[in-house]
Amino acid sequence: MATEIERKFLVNGDKWRTLGTGIIYCQGYIRTTNETTVRIRIVGERGYLTIKGLTVGTSRPEFEYPIPIEDAREMLNTLCERPLIEKIRFRIEQGGLIWEVDEFLGENQGLIIAEVELTDENQVIELPDWIGAEVSNEPRYFNANLAKYPFNKWTT
Amino acid sequence: MATEIERKFLVNGDKWRTLGTGIIYCQGYIRTTNETTVRIRIVGERGYLTIKGLTVGTSRPEFEYPIPIEDAREMLNTLCERPLIEKIRFRIEQGGLIWEVDEFLGENQGLIIAEVELTDENQVIELPDWIGAEVSNEPRYFNANLAKYPFNKWTT
Repeated sequence: MATEIERKFLVNGDKWRTLGTGIIYCQGYIRTTNETTVRIRIVGERGYLTIKGLTVGTSRPEFEYPIPIEDAREMLNTLCERPLIEKIRFRIEQGGLIWEVDEFLGENQGLIIAEVELTDENQVIELPDWIGAEVSNEPRYFNANLAKYPFNKWTT
Repeated sequence: MATEIERKFLVNGDKWRTLGTGIIYCQGYIRTTNETTVRIRIVGERGYLTIKGLTVGTSRPEFEYPIPIEDAREMLNTLCERPLIEKIRFRIEQGGLIWEVDEFLGENQGLIIAEVELTDENQVIELPDWIGAEVSNEPRYFNANLAKYPFNKWTT
């Protein structure tokens, strides 16, 4: 079990696009009755099954396992709620941190979110100038929620 | 992905007890909003994560992965609904078939179910004399439902 400590931000402008390269992600969720997340994900040609527990502050327990890509495809097709989340993830190293910038496609097109994983909840980080407002504590930006209420349906 | 084709029965008497040996199973479920099952299971000292799709007739798609037992313990403790399912599973070979007889403990104590896995939905099987009424199509006997409405709370 790992613990995920993560902060999420909106981005400003397009400068970040020149700073890293992108990989296609396709993921879906088996909807649960509580805050546990069950995620099926395909990254390039690799499949993963991930279970995440309750978020406390910015920390979240995470259990991730590689699975055959055929299993991932089958579960995305038959068991996951619609819409699936499709995005291009850009990996950007800056200021000693790894930033992951997700440019969403499909029903979440137009949304771009930058995430940074921390080793400590209180870690002080330097924000690149292309980082915008923080949305770490806004549940509608969680990928699992973007599968329920995609960005294109937001009214504010 | 495997497809599980299974029939379930009640048992008569205690004769089956002499026909196999038992292993302790502890399992729990992350409750979902549809008929998909997400199960965490410990068998002896091994952990498993299993996802099962919609049951059609007696067939059900099943995706099972071994996971570290520490992960399984952590997820059972923190993410799975109560009560957990505890049972002793007896493996009995008879008439060319493998029967699994589950003697439930905890809040399902008193319930004993025999399951047989088939290779074909229409396979004709010989029922041992210790096999009782078939319950394949009674959802309350599904392990995932025994975690919601345990046997000790049944009124009929």
